[in-house]
Amino acid sequence: LAASALSRSHRRPSGAPAAAAGRAAHGAHTEPDVSVRWLARSAGRLRMAVDRVALDDLGGWSRDATTGNLGHRSGGFFSVEGMAVEAADGPVGSWSQPIIHQPEVGILGILAKEFDGVLRFLLQAKAEPGNHNGVQLSPTVQATRSNYMRVHRGRPVPYLDYFRHASRHRVLVDVRQSEQGSWFFRKRNRNMVVEVTEEVEMRDGFRWLTLGEIHALLARDDTVNMDTRTVLGCLPVTGTDLTPMFDVPGSDRFRTALVRSCDPAAGALHDATGVLSWITEARTVTGIRARLVPLDEVEGWRRTAGRIHHRSGRFFEVIGVRVQAAGREVERWDQPMIRPVGTGVIAFLAGSIGGVLHVLARASAQPGYADVIELAPTVQCTPGNHEHLPAAARPRFLEEVLGADEERIRFDAVLSEEGGRFFHARNRYVIVEVDPDAVAEPPGFRWLAPHQLGELVRHGHYLNIEARSLLACLHSLKSTAGSVK
Amino acid sequence: LAASALSRSHRRPSGAPAAAAGRAAHGAHTEPDVSVRWLARSAGRLRMAVDRVALDDLGGWSRDATTGNLGHRSGGFFSVEGMAVEAADGPVGSWSQPIIHQPEVGILGILAKEFDGVLRFLLQAKAEPGNHNGVQLSPTVQATRSNYMRVHRGRPVPYLDYFRHASRHRVLVDVRQSEQGSWFFRKRNRNMVVEVTEEVEMRDGFRWLTLGEIHALLARDDTVNMDTRTVLGCLPVTGTDLTPMFDVPGSDRFRTALVRSCDPAAGALHDATGVLSWITEARTVTGIRARLVPLDEVEGWRRTAGRIHHRSGRFFEVIGVRVQAAGREVERWDQPMIRPVGTGVIAFLAGSIGGVLHVLARASAQPGYADVIELAPTVQCTPGNHEHLPAAARPRFLEEVLGADEERIRFDAVLSEEGGRFFHARNRYVIVEVDPDAVAEPPGFRWLAPHQLGELVRHGHYLNIEARSLLACLHSLKSTAGSVK
Repeated sequence: LAASALSRSHRRPSGAPAAAAGRAAHGAHTEPDVSVRWLARSAGRLRMAVDRVALDDLGGWSRDATTGNLGHRSGGFFSVEGMAVEAADGPVGSWSQPIIHQPEVGILGILAKEFDGVLRFLLQAKAEPGNHNGVQLSPTVQATRSNYMRVHRGRPVPYLDYFRHASRHRVLVDVRQSEQGSWFFRKRNRNMVVEVTEEVEMRDGFRWLTLGEIHALLARDDTVNMDTRTVLGCLPVTGTDLTPMFDVPGSDRFRTALVRSCDPAAGALHDATGVLSWITEARTVTGIRARLVPLDEVEGWRRTAGRIHHRSGRFFEVIGVRVQAAGREVERWDQPMIRPVGTGVIAFLAGSIGGVLHVLARASAQPGYADVIELAPTVQCTPGNHEHLPAAARPRFLEEVLGADEERIRFDAVLSEEGGRFFHARNRYVIVEVDPDAVAEPPGFRWLAPHQLGELVRHGHYLNIEARSLLACLHSLKSTAGSVK
Repeated sequence: LAASALSRSHRRPSGAPAAAAGRAAHGAHTEPDVSVRWLARSAGRLRMAVDRVALDDLGGWSRDATTGNLGHRSGGFFSVEGMAVEAADGPVGSWSQPIIHQPEVGILGILAKEFDGVLRFLLQAKAEPGNHNGVQLSPTVQATRSNYMRVHRGRPVPYLDYFRHASRHRVLVDVRQSEQGSWFFRKRNRNMVVEVTEEVEMRDGFRWLTLGEIHALLARDDTVNMDTRTVLGCLPVTGTDLTPMFDVPGSDRFRTALVRSCDPAAGALHDATGVLSWITEARTVTGIRARLVPLDEVEGWRRTAGRIHHRSGRFFEVIGVRVQAAGREVERWDQPMIRPVGTGVIAFLAGSIGGVLHVLARASAQPGYADVIELAPTVQCTPGNHEHLPAAARPRFLEEVLGADEERIRFDAVLSEEGGRFFHARNRYVIVEVDPDAVAEPPGFRWLAPHQLGELVRHGHYLNIEARSLLACLHSLKSTAGSVK
């Protein structure tokens, strides 16, 4: 506890996690083809068989006689219950729906290690039953608490101890973050990046990738899974002047503004206190209340032996699947899943303000959030769910995204949501360049610089999972590989 | 939205709230006697009559026939309900108790204005029924939502519009913070400081005070009320190098380390990511669950027509009071209150690590918190409540505080908790200087620098109300007036 302790832990230039940004950035220009081929080879080997099964026939799951809730016989994993919502200010005043209830906090952890001055991240080629293409790139560890406490009595989760005893290593990210607020009831996972210096045992299906390689894979459809994206979205890639590392000849105005926007010293349209006050105001005045109700009491939903679906055919359905997989902790299981109807659109409008890139963030109230609102992308919706509504109730800026000229589309990939709970849930992630002078800042929207999002995401419940995912995509545009589309 | 907008809002040196610290610090050396005399005069004029009344006789309040809960006939204000707690890791595994339920978010707001380069704060001499000495120094506005929505049909709350339309002014603080986690169920208030430049109408009972004057008053028993202290605890008084302003001849080592500890560049024992990770870990592993239950179902509590009390005579009792007051929005009312048994001790151990002051913060789980744990002072307890427990279950470091040599006691005042809900609730707030090398960092405790607490308190739910209060007391030791005890 002497002065030497102080300097050791805080003052060493490479000690701050911000420095991780620099070490990670050094890997920005790596050739991605090798990792693409590795993932393809893994996909051939790991593919799992997934069959639809009627909800009533799911092995290990049963329907509660009183509530109708679907639960696992162990009491672990998750349950499908009902949620009643009152949203005084929303386009629809009140509704009820099925919802996944999973009160435990899981771990989404990525192991990092420096090789020759470049930080690499240990990712896993992993099949999930909900992935429409089988295998995607997952974090080192992706485990529910039931999972790692071994409720299923399966094999232990590889590499888990690095995250359960993280304080023995250098922690770069450790924050609980929300998940999909319209499908999960107040679900949170612990997003972690832990850096080690020791030798790490290499297991089959795992690979050390540079940030540049991951960025290149992000631009490919359905390749980097949601759990990897949310953790990447929390990675400290702002806070230092990265300009020299990304100062590539031929950078255009957009990319130059993006690189500058990672440096807090570059400033922003709204100062930090103003942004926090805007969030406080939104959380205070927004009237949304959600509570769990028996699944049998949700209105507007039809339940058959096979599935639960909305009478309009919109939104999503709850289905059952039977899974057979090789090389997993458990090799066979049944489970319910949410299957959304239609592909969604998740987009940031982005543009330079005074030479610093800003994105238009929205204060979004979703019933499953722990704290009223979180910051969401400019647009986040499934267009088909809104077609029956009057124009004024349709998502703001959706037209601007769908109608954008091709040269203004900076990122565009169809990415999958969590394949352990959602069946073929895919969203088109888009970043559209606009002139902020031409786009007003309507109530509920603010132009924010990425360095501000980077500061907020160190804490839980400020950026929703779609915004974290899209933030990872935005940062990928700094890597040369990522910008070659 | 052009470059000029960017520089206007962010780059101007005096634009950042951090600069408020400097402007406030300029008022550090002001003579406090005038404000003491003003408060004494106000006290003579504003004293209210408070009489004990049996709970069953409270006008406007009734007992729910099914639950036994005590509620106001308007449905507003607050209710007294029951809370059942399971705390697997605590010294007591499970218990139930009465609790105040007030789901609405109130406003605690202080108006600030610069006079001749010095920031002054508009405070109010206000009587509250629970204050044992009648009048204390309150924020400009201290209003529940029922209050300002005028459920009680009284007069409008003075100065409220500055806070309801804060974005028209310069916001220095705007954050929802928790209140007492053992007496309130997930209660939060919006802590605000709003700076105006316009002429402000002066009303009777209000006065502009410098930070130095407030600091001097903080050192006096029962003078600055809890609501003022929590808002002061959120004031950005760190983040700039204040050394020149506080560089008073004759400063001792403690005060020099305190002034340095306000500057993030001075470093700290644990880096920011490590602190956040420690909090995330504590919130993940701590097993505490609290839920509302009918007041009639709490176990171990006796209810008579007059009051509700624990069979041991410990903890607190719920009583009724009848209030007559002049000059308030409403001049007569009845209400239930919590009357704690005994005076509490709230203390920081503080010491210099490498020339930078650190305080020993504790991750404290209280059932009424919204998110498992918050950072609390080193010691926070009512000693009498623990006398029956085995030594190992008694609060850690309590002996060190109660037995500290006088020359090591840097702050020592008996201060009141919220006089609108708590009857004669008083705690001894203490800051004890120790040598951090001689005090280990047990599990659940961390040595943190005040600049780190200043960064955390910009967000909700990191520092509990007692820690925010004591942080304001700690900062008062920078003012010369405050250090003259």
